Amino acid sequence: MNAAQRRLAEGILFTDAYQLTMAQVYFRNGIHETLAQFDHFFRANPDYGTHRAGYCISAGLGSVLEWMRESRFGPAELDVLRAQRSRAGKPLFGEDFLQWLSRYGNFESITLRAIPEGRVVHPHVPLTIVEGPLAIAQLLETALLNQINFQTLIATKASRVRESCQGRLLLEFGARRAQDRAAIAGARAALIGGADFSSNVGASAVLGYPPKGTHAHSMVQAFIALGGSEYDAFRAYAELYPDDCVLLVDTIDTLNSGLPNAIRVFEELRRKGHRPVGVRLDSGDLAHLSIQAARELDAAGFPDAVIVLSNQLDELLIWQITSQIQEEAPRYGMNAEQVIRRLVYGVGTSLITSAGSAALDGVYKLVSLWRNSAWVPAIKISETPAKTLNPGNKRVWRIYDQRGMATADLLTLEHEDPRQQSPLVLRHPSDHTKFRILQPESISEIELLTVEVLRQGQLCVELGDIEAMRQVRQRDVARLDPGVRRLINPHGYHVSLSQSLWELKQQLIGELREWPLGG
Amino acid sequence: MNAAQRRLAEGILFTDAYQLTMAQVYFRNGIHETLAQFDHFFRANPDYGTHRAGYCISAGLGSVLEWMRESRFGPAELDVLRAQRSRAGKPLFGEDFLQWLSRYGNFESITLRAIPEGRVVHPHVPLTIVEGPLAIAQLLETALLNQINFQTLIATKASRVRESCQGRLLLEFGARRAQDRAAIAGARAALIGGADFSSNVGASAVLGYPPKGTHAHSMVQAFIALGGSEYDAFRAYAELYPDDCVLLVDTIDTLNSGLPNAIRVFEELRRKGHRPVGVRLDSGDLAHLSIQAARELDAAGFPDAVIVLSNQLDELLIWQITSQIQEEAPRYGMNAEQVIRRLVYGVGTSLITSAGSAALDGVYKLVSLWRNSAWVPAIKISETPAKTLNPGNKRVWRIYDQRGMATADLLTLEHEDPRQQSPLVLRHPSDHTKFRILQPESISEIELLTVEVLRQGQLCVELGDIEAMRQVRQRDVARLDPGVRRLINPHGYHVSLSQSLWELKQQLIGELREWPLGG
Repeated sequence: MNAAQRRLAEGILFTDAYQLTMAQVYFRNGIHETLAQFDHFFRANPDYGTHRAGYCISAGLGSVLEWMRESRFGPAELDVLRAQRSRAGKPLFGEDFLQWLSRYGNFESITLRAIPEGRVVHPHVPLTIVEGPLAIAQLLETALLNQINFQTLIATKASRVRESCQGRLLLEFGARRAQDRAAIAGARAALIGGADFSSNVGASAVLGYPPKGTHAHSMVQAFIALGGSEYDAFRAYAELYPDDCVLLVDTIDTLNSGLPNAIRVFEELRRKGHRPVGVRLDSGDLAHLSIQAARELDAAGFPDAVIVLSNQLDELLIWQITSQIQEEAPRYGMNAEQVIRRLVYGVGTSLITSAGSAALDGVYKLVSLWRNSAWVPAIKISETPAKTLNPGNKRVWRIYDQRGMATADLLTLEHEDPRQQSPLVLRHPSDHTKFRILQPESISEIELLTVEVLRQGQLCVELGDIEAMRQVRQRDVARLDPGVRRLINPHGYHVSLSQSLWELKQQLIGELREWPLGG
Repeated sequence: MNAAQRRLAEGILFTDAYQLTMAQVYFRNGIHETLAQFDHFFRANPDYGTHRAGYCISAGLGSVLEWMRESRFGPAELDVLRAQRSRAGKPLFGEDFLQWLSRYGNFESITLRAIPEGRVVHPHVPLTIVEGPLAIAQLLETALLNQINFQTLIATKASRVRESCQGRLLLEFGARRAQDRAAIAGARAALIGGADFSSNVGASAVLGYPPKGTHAHSMVQAFIALGGSEYDAFRAYAELYPDDCVLLVDTIDTLNSGLPNAIRVFEELRRKGHRPVGVRLDSGDLAHLSIQAARELDAAGFPDAVIVLSNQLDELLIWQITSQIQEEAPRYGMNAEQVIRRLVYGVGTSLITSAGSAALDGVYKLVSLWRNSAWVPAIKISETPAKTLNPGNKRVWRIYDQRGMATADLLTLEHEDPRQQSPLVLRHPSDHTKFRILQPESISEIELLTVEVLRQGQLCVELGDIEAMRQVRQRDVARLDPGVRRLINPHGYHVSLSQSLWELKQQLIGELREWPLGG
């Protein structure tokens, strides 16, 4: 697959075949330009097996908007469709439909409401609400799900790892283990969700961050194989990067070779007026070795030298490492907090792939169609009540309690304003016995989460940069209950329906159940 | 990130920062053009938690070769490096180094040996052996690992799902849940590993396959919301695609609505001389519903109509579904094999992300350097003996037993020919007490697995198409012991060292242990 082929595959044909066959059905039946609304939401927070997330961090919207702006049916794309054949050998797509795609097969007709990137989001809450001609809104499904599902998944993982780092520097190191070019979108999502920097040079450059890194074992091996030593390798590195010198000390033996050689080089740097940055540990008992490394570095007069940890880290391992240091450091006469404070975490595979939960189960569901000058709600019912769709043209609100903490997200119909409802009734999405009634005095704020981002394809809001998204995330995470934030077995966060939306849902379920055979 | 930025991020800067800082260390020390060899191998088969793989399918080489051909340092790439600063505010990269990168920073100097795509491969066996100037071979690491690790992971999962399908059609449906643009490379790997087709339109087009798909629930919902019915939706679809008609029957109620409506439409198609293809089930008890659907379709005179199954399938679920059909079908007077024979599997998330094992742990290790007109082996030892590197310039062979089945992979030094060794000694890579001695009569064939693919950047072998890779895979999988192939708790396959390689490894370990402090 060369670059031209990749451009073709990454453009508007980055979609499932059925989006195009359905679009042609709509075209033939004259409903392709009927206005439709689709909700994109996920049904469950990531579950990593031994632990699971209590919230997600929204990410990917900016990437989808770029993709939408650039994607359309040009001659190459139309030729792909023109070549497709039915089993009977006839063209699958009519020329009139292809002409329509050529003219209208782009996203200039789409209106998009969305929860901005960096925000805390929860299951069943629409992250994006897509409004546009039925055939076009349908065509957007695959690429929108793909990008927002993935980046939200990674931003969520990054936020969890960020929590376990307790304010220390977090570096994204996953490019080599990422799923192909997801390394790039993944670096973006990791930066939104909580990584401070990435080792990925290209992704960092286009996102406006300096890439970070140290060196590999191979550099030490190379100097040794050519007749030199670990010390020679360290010295060569330090001479070239005297102000950025982080040395990987575990190629031969961390405590008996790497650390003494690094300290010797650091002393030389100091004599030349430079301040060495620190060492990296990539194998062994990282908690124990961190304490020993800190002790040696202290003894040599480098109390500020950092200790970068890497090697299959994730949020639980980092938590475990800091817990072990707290327990073990005093035995060596070390202050545990002073050891922990100098740690830097390099997290690879687990962050860039969301190991244990490699996909967010985001879906894209038709919720409303414009008919006879009004929105007609659409529903799909399921044997599993929690999977029955919340129908209609909706808005999303967040309710903060008297402490200023987020207590529930509320889905309402578009014309509703929960700020005008007193008391406020929150209905459980599927269990009719469960509801909450909130009196005005228990509510400090009600915030509209969905923002109109595109109106007929035109951007109508300024998208902040990644730095701004990070601030949004920090603010939102700080307003989550600690029970929801915790890394293991978090509390469920309430996502509720307004009374009006609840009633509409029940009415539609009733109508569909009475009318199963159609026709 | 717009298209131009993405091109920058996907090119030669798709790498970790340390590859470039190390390359400059080599440059400053005059060893950047010293010839080096790196082995790329993985240490363990994917472990999905409840089950694990007993072998892998090699994939991704063709994609890496395309990337290498197209990637080099142009003005934009050099400007990214030129802008990087040390902590002291000085340029991190010297202009002389950047000039060297501008002239030589491409892969025209690389010689590459590799195990071809589609072949069965095992842990610790080099999938690629990269030979080239130290700085350039180092620069290749991130992109090579990224692409081959991922595609091998997905081809392996596809091969497992393929086994569970017992010869039935397997469709890759994962684009929306893939990790960003990994949907494209993932579709390629899935086709190599065992998927018959993909729903991904763009990826299928550039890979030369027709995309496959049915329709979504939203099409039925749309017709209902506009005043029509499920039947109307089905009829509209059937009129447009009379020879390719697969109807999704679970939007309202599979047995009471979807299936009767589909059969009514199929009867209309038949009257017009068309043959309906079948139905799709996407929820509920797929085994039970398959039996019921088969019974209804039989009764209506459509014994050949297929039943496409989808909804979070993986190799164990498919196995479970067919087992349940075998048990349950007779109770409904149905022949189980006749039900199973009409099934088609659409597999999404689990296949395209390798759910449960989202990364292959492939590594890229320096094994040899050219010094004083000879290859000097390099090693890295580890506290975990299995992680100690197999050093030197090596070749990979596969040994087939008297039944013609693969019995072991053998790593030898480059000059060795195991076909000339009798008896053949196979040493365990780390346990000195374990070895096998094979007499000539117990060996039917010894095959060289590594092929020279690039010589100084020039392709020196014809890379087959995906169809050829599939045939290679089928042949290789058929020559695996059933114990290695099985889906749960497979037997370990032997990967051994030749006596000469074993002795070299022990010698190098000894030398390094005596000489820990270097300098």
